[in-house]
Amino acid sequence: MGNTSYFSDGGLQPLFYPTSIALAGVTVNNPEHWTRTFLNALLEFQFEGPLYLVNPRGGEIRGIKVYQRLADIPQNIDYVISTVPAKAAPGLIEECAHKGVKAVHFCTAGFSETGEQEGVRLEAQLAELSRKTGIRILGPNCMGIYCPGSRISFNMDFPKESGPVGFISQSGGNAGGLIHQIMSRGVRFSKVVSYGNACDLNETDFLDYLAADPETKIIGLYIEGLKDGRRFRQMVEKAARAKPIVLLKGGSTEGGARAAAGHTGALAGSEVIWDSLCKHVGIIHVHSLEELADSLVTLSFMDPPKGRRVALIGDGGGNSVLITDEFERTGLKVPPLPQEIRNLIGEFTPLAGNILRNPIDYSQSTMESEKFLRTVRIILQWEGIDFLIWFPNLAWVELSEMHRMYKIVDGILKESRAASKPIAVVVRTDILPELAKKVYSFAQKCVSSELPIYYSFASAANAIDLLLRHKERRLGKPLSGA
Amino acid sequence: MGNTSYFSDGGLQPLFYPTSIALAGVTVNNPEHWTRTFLNALLEFQFEGPLYLVNPRGGEIRGIKVYQRLADIPQNIDYVISTVPAKAAPGLIEECAHKGVKAVHFCTAGFSETGEQEGVRLEAQLAELSRKTGIRILGPNCMGIYCPGSRISFNMDFPKESGPVGFISQSGGNAGGLIHQIMSRGVRFSKVVSYGNACDLNETDFLDYLAADPETKIIGLYIEGLKDGRRFRQMVEKAARAKPIVLLKGGSTEGGARAAAGHTGALAGSEVIWDSLCKHVGIIHVHSLEELADSLVTLSFMDPPKGRRVALIGDGGGNSVLITDEFERTGLKVPPLPQEIRNLIGEFTPLAGNILRNPIDYSQSTMESEKFLRTVRIILQWEGIDFLIWFPNLAWVELSEMHRMYKIVDGILKESRAASKPIAVVVRTDILPELAKKVYSFAQKCVSSELPIYYSFASAANAIDLLLRHKERRLGKPLSGA
Repeated sequence: MGNTSYFSDGGLQPLFYPTSIALAGVTVNNPEHWTRTFLNALLEFQFEGPLYLVNPRGGEIRGIKVYQRLADIPQNIDYVISTVPAKAAPGLIEECAHKGVKAVHFCTAGFSETGEQEGVRLEAQLAELSRKTGIRILGPNCMGIYCPGSRISFNMDFPKESGPVGFISQSGGNAGGLIHQIMSRGVRFSKVVSYGNACDLNETDFLDYLAADPETKIIGLYIEGLKDGRRFRQMVEKAARAKPIVLLKGGSTEGGARAAAGHTGALAGSEVIWDSLCKHVGIIHVHSLEELADSLVTLSFMDPPKGRRVALIGDGGGNSVLITDEFERTGLKVPPLPQEIRNLIGEFTPLAGNILRNPIDYSQSTMESEKFLRTVRIILQWEGIDFLIWFPNLAWVELSEMHRMYKIVDGILKESRAASKPIAVVVRTDILPELAKKVYSFAQKCVSSELPIYYSFASAANAIDLLLRHKERRLGKPLSGA
Repeated sequence: MGNTSYFSDGGLQPLFYPTSIALAGVTVNNPEHWTRTFLNALLEFQFEGPLYLVNPRGGEIRGIKVYQRLADIPQNIDYVISTVPAKAAPGLIEECAHKGVKAVHFCTAGFSETGEQEGVRLEAQLAELSRKTGIRILGPNCMGIYCPGSRISFNMDFPKESGPVGFISQSGGNAGGLIHQIMSRGVRFSKVVSYGNACDLNETDFLDYLAADPETKIIGLYIEGLKDGRRFRQMVEKAARAKPIVLLKGGSTEGGARAAAGHTGALAGSEVIWDSLCKHVGIIHVHSLEELADSLVTLSFMDPPKGRRVALIGDGGGNSVLITDEFERTGLKVPPLPQEIRNLIGEFTPLAGNILRNPIDYSQSTMESEKFLRTVRIILQWEGIDFLIWFPNLAWVELSEMHRMYKIVDGILKESRAASKPIAVVVRTDILPELAKKVYSFAQKCVSSELPIYYSFASAANAIDLLLRHKERRLGKPLSGA
């Protein structure tokens, strides 16, 4: 078992690296029932510690004995994942206390987020029991922990490999949504926590943990409301000095705040306050799950360029015009190629059907990959740019010709390293099956080369601008081209 | 042959509804060569008029005789599509004049867009020959006409059915890019023109034509630079009174303008001037191909709602929070459900795991499609909202359960019609093959029901806001909820 992280952990080690887990409330009769979620995921991930099942009916599930009560389990239990109904939650804590359990994750909903008196009361009772017994509570109303290093997951189809991104999400759906959205772009996670109503452990506890966690190099946050604003502010200031942080704040409009209250019982707070906190502390502030995904791709795979000056090379005149508009509108600079560089490229590249100005539309000659790579080399060696974007048009490439694109991926990576200038890739995609298939294969090739990939000009420009603004804030000065 | 449009056509009828076509410059020996593009597309579309091939080498292609010269063709020719090299273009016009050809489309690049003296001179010569001979020229440096009604296309895989959208695009790549991007969302076209360097026929000529064309109900424009600003302004003002127009202006930044000059030789003009023109005339102004696609989907499939007040119903608490933020940030209103409506829904819907506030997170009960549709009916009957957005999470639906989603599509459409309140659908997608496949099937079901579909919360909010702003500008007053 990957018990690899040793540091002052605020008592959270039993959640991320439990030596044993009991699942309380898992359904015996109905294999399709949602209470099977965690069992299915832990078996799929081959969690290596002992795994116990508890349900008053007893019996057996997938060859594993079901105990009728927690107390019946002969061995010690570190961590309990509970899917018992809300009203049975307080009783379970007391059983856990007798059994010496260190932490409990309550998945079930039906607490303060309902706005009903009974739910609010039950949640307050859980918090009180946590203080009294010393048992740490994760939730209620959340999906809990995904930690590939210790083979814990709340979803069977998350990646099994670890990576540098830690993600703290008040929403389980948004945690899963983010993981799914960027797994095909190569991003991998150290730890993900969906923490819900946060009656005991909250955003700040997890931030504290991830800030110190040696496995975590980049931190993502999805927060609907804070439990302790002052403590969060202190901690996030400290954490942001150590690691880049990207924040998506849910509930920043009147209606969104109402939704957040109904979702996790959160008090949302105003957009202005959050924006000024991010500016002050140096947090990358994003406004959608897509933008969060793009930022984490950038932080995972792109060294910050030395400046804002970009060379754009790819397929299509209209595309060249639009990508240039998008990058310049965002505040990046697309400087014209000097005549001597144009002449160098023009020696082996026809002018008709290509544009050699920056942007560089190479559509007539992309398939001649040696010419294309020679052009990339010439451009990267020019001191007038800091990074390069490649925007191939896969709609124009036959499936049988994709190997030429893969050859360019290998070559462009080599050129990028030789010139010490980062490269990113943008491909338009669509749900049309043939194009989707090509884009998927192409993305997997980029991922294996650790190239950042984006699916629209706007999202690439925005994500790279956010990275550069973050760097400028750290340096305290604008970069070249700004 | 669908010679269906009769109106004062400014001499453009031979381009859209030619009685015969000759392809000049099509390669005899190499079936993979780009000069085969038009032949392949016209055969695929089964163009019904006589189709002639011309190449000095003579011979035969796909069973069709190749004439060595235009003059050798015994019959009359209406329209010539030319892929001859730039330097041979003027000679071809003179041959066309002798043969009585009415219009020529020059696809080939290598004219003023190169910035080279020779290219500029050749293009001026073409313009001069057009004036002298009366032959209308489309291009050079463009893909020409796609008109499914007359079975003309420049791409084999464009849809064969006609639709209400006319699109005038200076870029052939962006024309194809747009068609591909929205064909899977059900949008169909009356006519699409890629017109390139516009040495004779320009944006205004085509706008004039589409404004009068009874087949065209909605007009899209992609323009890099104008040939005659004053005439364009007059025409677009007139056209905008008759039909909704969406404009994507390429080259609106310094770098983008440089790209446009290298692409179509266009002089781009400033963003500010274009923006004020759009505001004054009542044109929907968009800034990316994706936004253009979303706007055309909205105009094609959504009746303008009576006001800005929306009900949001779908799957996931975190999603509910984020979609609400996105809609309210864009200037739409998500009013809270009154208690009596909540009570009505609460009678058959559990509170735990759902949110019944507007947004409505129905994730625990979506699969019970009768409850879901009953909820939709109650909400649509409430006078506090003007339209409804459904955001199912297809990542949570097994492929084998998709039929339940299709049942909801049918039901939601019925409810929408009964209440006379429009409905739109948002589904997140990804390149992950399984999800992409589900989204594609689901989108096809929405398309067959003529429901507008979007792939992100932001793009749905933005496209519907643009529609409402357009309506408000027409009415000269804000709508309810503004």
